[in-house]
Amino acid sequence: MKGDFNAYVATMRKIADISHAISLLSWDKEVNMPPNGAAFRTQQVATLSGMAHETFTAPAFKENLDALYEVREDMDIKSRRNIEITKKKWDRAACFTTEFVMKKSKITSEGYHAWLKAREANDYGLFKEALRKLVDIKKEECELVGYTDHPYEALLDEYEPGAKVADLDTLFSDVRNQMVAFCRKIADSQQVDDSFLVKHFDKDKQWDFGLDILKVMGYDFDSGRQDISPHPFTTNFAPTDVRVTTRIDEQNFGSMTWSCIHEGGHALYEQGLPSSEYGLPSGNAVSLGIHESQSRLWENNVGRSLPFWNAHMGLAKEYFPEQLGDVDSNAFFKAINKVVPSLIRVESDELYYHFHILIRYEIEKGLLEGNYDIDHLNEVWNAKYKEYLGIDVPNDKEGILQDIHWAYGSIGYFPTYSLGSFYAAQFFAQAKKDIPDLLSKMEKGDTTELLAWLRENIHQYGSTYPAEELCKRITGEGLNFKYFMEYAQEKYGKIYAV
Amino acid sequence: MKGDFNAYVATMRKIADISHAISLLSWDKEVNMPPNGAAFRTQQVATLSGMAHETFTAPAFKENLDALYEVREDMDIKSRRNIEITKKKWDRAACFTTEFVMKKSKITSEGYHAWLKAREANDYGLFKEALRKLVDIKKEECELVGYTDHPYEALLDEYEPGAKVADLDTLFSDVRNQMVAFCRKIADSQQVDDSFLVKHFDKDKQWDFGLDILKVMGYDFDSGRQDISPHPFTTNFAPTDVRVTTRIDEQNFGSMTWSCIHEGGHALYEQGLPSSEYGLPSGNAVSLGIHESQSRLWENNVGRSLPFWNAHMGLAKEYFPEQLGDVDSNAFFKAINKVVPSLIRVESDELYYHFHILIRYEIEKGLLEGNYDIDHLNEVWNAKYKEYLGIDVPNDKEGILQDIHWAYGSIGYFPTYSLGSFYAAQFFAQAKKDIPDLLSKMEKGDTTELLAWLRENIHQYGSTYPAEELCKRITGEGLNFKYFMEYAQEKYGKIYAV
Repeated sequence: MKGDFNAYVATMRKIADISHAISLLSWDKEVNMPPNGAAFRTQQVATLSGMAHETFTAPAFKENLDALYEVREDMDIKSRRNIEITKKKWDRAACFTTEFVMKKSKITSEGYHAWLKAREANDYGLFKEALRKLVDIKKEECELVGYTDHPYEALLDEYEPGAKVADLDTLFSDVRNQMVAFCRKIADSQQVDDSFLVKHFDKDKQWDFGLDILKVMGYDFDSGRQDISPHPFTTNFAPTDVRVTTRIDEQNFGSMTWSCIHEGGHALYEQGLPSSEYGLPSGNAVSLGIHESQSRLWENNVGRSLPFWNAHMGLAKEYFPEQLGDVDSNAFFKAINKVVPSLIRVESDELYYHFHILIRYEIEKGLLEGNYDIDHLNEVWNAKYKEYLGIDVPNDKEGILQDIHWAYGSIGYFPTYSLGSFYAAQFFAQAKKDIPDLLSKMEKGDTTELLAWLRENIHQYGSTYPAEELCKRITGEGLNFKYFMEYAQEKYGKIYAV
Repeated sequence: MKGDFNAYVATMRKIADISHAISLLSWDKEVNMPPNGAAFRTQQVATLSGMAHETFTAPAFKENLDALYEVREDMDIKSRRNIEITKKKWDRAACFTTEFVMKKSKITSEGYHAWLKAREANDYGLFKEALRKLVDIKKEECELVGYTDHPYEALLDEYEPGAKVADLDTLFSDVRNQMVAFCRKIADSQQVDDSFLVKHFDKDKQWDFGLDILKVMGYDFDSGRQDISPHPFTTNFAPTDVRVTTRIDEQNFGSMTWSCIHEGGHALYEQGLPSSEYGLPSGNAVSLGIHESQSRLWENNVGRSLPFWNAHMGLAKEYFPEQLGDVDSNAFFKAINKVVPSLIRVESDELYYHFHILIRYEIEKGLLEGNYDIDHLNEVWNAKYKEYLGIDVPNDKEGILQDIHWAYGSIGYFPTYSLGSFYAAQFFAQAKKDIPDLLSKMEKGDTTELLAWLRENIHQYGSTYPAEELCKRITGEGLNFKYFMEYAQEKYGKIYAV
C-alpha cells in the first residue's frame, strides 16, 4: 500500500476551500457585516469549521496519509514536506480528546470575556482567575503534545514550527544585552522633531495615498483590494485574492501609512505563493515569523528608509502640501523613526518594540515553569517595564491587559513578532548583497527587483523549507541577531548621532 | 420508529449555514472580488455546493425524513409542512441519476457560453443548437420528475411550487384579452412628459437618496446594507443580514430609484422571515411569485403611487433641486408611470411588462409541446412582439437573446414575474380594506402599518402555507387577475384619461 497522492491533494484542497470560505465570512464580519448579523455568522463559521475538521480527521484520509508518510523518502522534496507537515498537524490534533478540546474552548471563551471586562474596568484582578485557568490548560496542552527540551516549545510550534527555546533565549539575551545600552544612548541624544506628523490629515486623501503606496510596493489590485476595519489585517482566499485592511486616524499621518505598508508586505507574500500548490503546505506561508519578516521588511527596512522617502516624499507632498510642503525627506526620515519608550506595544517604535516582546517572552516562559504568582502578575509586568524601558506603568489597561493574545489562549505567539524583524534585517542585508544597486533603485522608487528577490528566495517555496533552513539557504546561516543590530546601529547612528 | 425532529432540524440548519456561506461567496463575487479571484472562487462554491448536497442526500438524513413523513399528520401545521416540503425536495433530487445531472450541467454550461457568443454576435443562429439541447434535456427532466396535467408543471414547480398550467393559461388569457385593448387605448391618448427624468443626476446624491428611500420603507440597516453591483439583487445570510445591491445611471433618475425600492421590497420579506425557523422551509420564502409580490408591491403599488410621492417629492427636490425643483408630484407621478411598448423586458413599464412574460410563457409551453421549429424561434418571438406590443424587433440581441434565463436552463421561471405583480395587486387591495387610512398614511410618508400588515399576513409564515392557500387566507380567494386590472384601470385611467 503506497498511498494515493492525488487523493491526498484533493482532500487538502477541499479543506482549503472550506477554510477560505471561513476566511471570507470572517473578513466580511470585520469589513461589511451589519451588527445584527453576528449571531448567525458565528454559527455559520462554527459549522464550516466543524466540516473542515471532519474532513481532515476522516479515517480514510488518515490511512492514506500514513501510507504516504511511509514512502515519503521516495518523493521529491516538496511532496515529502507536504506529507510531513500534514502528518505532524494530524498527530498534534490526535493528542487531544474531544473532552480536552471542549474544556479548552470553554476556558478560552471565558478568558476572552473576563479580559474584556477587566480591560473595561482597568482591573487585572478581574482577569487573574481566568488567566490561571488559561495557563493551566496550556500546561496540560504542552504535556499532551509533548516536547524535547522545554514545554514552551509545544506551544511555539503551532506558530513557528521547529522553534527552540534555547535559540530564543540567545536572541532575547542579545536584545537585553545589546539594545538596552543602545536605546539608553539614543535617549541621551538630541531628540527629533515629529510634530508635523500629528497635524490634521484628511481621511479621503490618506485613503488615496495609501492605495498609491500599495501600488508602488507592487501589490496587485487585480488580485486584491483594500478596505477599512477597526484593526488592520491581511487575509486571503487564494493567491489571486489577497485582501488588506487599514484604519485611518486623521490626527496622525503614521497610523494609516505604516500599517498600510505593513499589511502590504504580508499581502505580497500571499500573492507570491504558488497557485499551483493551493491547499498544500507548499502553497502556504512557512511560519508566522517568516510572514512577519515580509511585513516588517517592507514596513521598516524599506518603508522607514531614507531612499524610499527620497523617492516618494514628492507624492506625500502632493497629497498634503499644507502639512508636509516644507518638510524635506531627511527631516521626514528622522521623524518617522523617532525612538521613544512607550507603554503600548502596537504603538512602539521598531527598537523598543523588542523590549515589549522580551517582557512577554520572559513572562510566558516563566508562567509555564511556574515561576510567577499569577495573583500579582501585573506587578511583574510593571517591574519589567521599569527595568527594560525605564517607564512606570500607570494602570493595567496600559499594562498587562493591553493585548488580547493571552485572553485567546495564544501563548507562544508573541516571539514571532521579534523573529519577523530579525529575519527581515538578515534578509534585507542579503538582498543588498545580491542586488548591488538596490538602494539606488529604491531612491528612484523602484523596488521591483527587491520584490522579485523575495519572490524568488522566499514566496515561491511556501512551506517547502522550514524557516531556519530557508534562512540558511538564502543567507548562508541561521537566524542571527547581529543583522538587526547592525541595521539599527547604521540607521539610528545617523539619526541620533550615536 | 417515529423519527427525530431535532436531528432533522440540526441537519437543515447545517445545510443552511453552508448555503449562506455560498451566498456570501456569490455576493462578494458581484460586489467586491478582484478580477483574478474568479477561478478559485468558482471552485470554492463548487466544493461547498457539493458538501451541502452530500449532507442533504446522506442516507441517515433520508431515513429520518421518511420516518418523520410517516407521522406528519400528528404534527403541528408548521412542522408538517417542513417535513412535506423537504420530502418533496428530496424526492425530486432522487429522480435524477448522477449521469443525468452531469449531462444537464454540461448542456447548461455550453448553453450559457453559446448564448454569450450569440448575444455578442447578435445572431440567434449561434444559439439555436444549444437551445435545442437545453429544451431536450428539460423535456427529459419533466418526464423524470413526472407531472399530472402538463410537463411544464414539472419545471414550474421548482420556482412556484404547486402552480398549474390551467391556472396560468387563465391568467395569461386574461392578460391577452383585457390588456391588449387597454394598452391600445393608452397608446391613443395624450402622452405624458418624462423628460425631466433623463437629466444628469449626480451619482453620490442618487446613492444617498436611495439609502433614504430604503429607510423610509422600513428596511433595517442594522440587519442589512446596500452596495453597488452590475445587476441589482437581494441576498441574505440570515433574516438578520439581508443585503441589497443597486446600480446607478447618472442620466436616468429611474434606474436606481425603482430598482432600489424593488430590491428593498424583496429585502423586507427576508428581514421579516422568522429567525427561529432558520434553515427550515417555515423560515424561507414560499415561492418566487410571492417573493416577487413583495418587491412589486413596494415598487409599483407603493413606489409609483401618487400618495407616496406626495410624501417624498420634497426629499427628491432636496437632493435634486435643479432637475426636479419645478416638478410637482402630480407631473412626477405621471412621468414615472409612462406607458410605452418597448423591446427589453427589464426596461418595461408595469403594463407592457406582462406581454413580455406572456410571450415567453407561450414559447416555453410550446417548446415543451414540440410546437415550434427551434431553427426559426427568433421569428416566432418577433411575430409575437408585433402582435402583442405592436413593435418590430430589429435584431436578436434586443429580441430572443435579451434574457439569460433559457441559457441557464431556467424554463418555467418567467411566469413568476407576472404572478408577483398580480399577487401584489390582490394583496394591496386587501391591505387597503384592512387598513382604511392606508393611503392617507402614505400621503404622510408613513408605511409602517403596511409593513406590519405584510409581516403579519405573509412574512412571518415563511413556507408554512402554499402560495395559493396563503392568498386565500389573506384575501378570501385564490389569485385573481381582476385585482391587477382594477389597479391598472384606476391608476392609468387617471393618468391617461382612459
